[in-house]
Amino acid sequence: MDENGVTFMNVIELPAVEVDGFVEQWRERAKLMRDAPGFRDSRLHRAKLPNTRFQLVNVAHWDSVEAWESAIANPAFQTAVRGVPGVVTPNPALYDVVVEYEQS
Amino acid sequence: MDENGVTFMNVIELPAVEVDGFVEQWRERAKLMRDAPGFRDSRLHRAKLPNTRFQLVNVAHWDSVEAWESAIANPAFQTAVRGVPGVVTPNPALYDVVVEYEQS
Repeated sequence: MDENGVTFMNVIELPAVEVDGFVEQWRERAKLMRDAPGFRDSRLHRAKLPNTRFQLVNVAHWDSVEAWESAIANPAFQTAVRGVPGVVTPNPALYDVVVEYEQS
Repeated sequence: MDENGVTFMNVIELPAVEVDGFVEQWRERAKLMRDAPGFRDSRLHRAKLPNTRFQLVNVAHWDSVEAWESAIANPAFQTAVRGVPGVVTPNPALYDVVVEYEQS
């Protein structure tokens, strides 16, 4: 396990009118992730303005790439993901923190 | 001041070959933000893979929308932002956390 872990982000494009419904589906789907080994935390962010290009961004932290890969391979999660409507364009990817500033 | 604050995110599209140079510019520019009132933290994330659509994502936290607005109005910051090359497409926006899960 990497002490710093890994950041998973999903930058989601969808019409503003679809956001409420998607958030409710996401809430249930993400519970499958929460219970997986190596999960640390997950926050779904919603844009304050309806004309923001990316209405939703999920920022999650995992112990390792391997833990995240095992979690998404879960058949229950795969089935849930197939229920995402076609109007939604997800952009999921893994990231490392390269610069970090805290309040000085 | 809102106890929960506000999340600022910038989802950045740029060619993978431009990432190293951009990160160094960002590191300096973000120092202007770090010193502003109401700044909490900022993390620049870099995609692990060169074919990820959004190579860089900044996730920052501020005490309030007003604090963030005051910080970006700083003329020194505005000057620095004008130095960003045209090949970079930033997508800056403010977000609220709508769902949050922590390790159970």
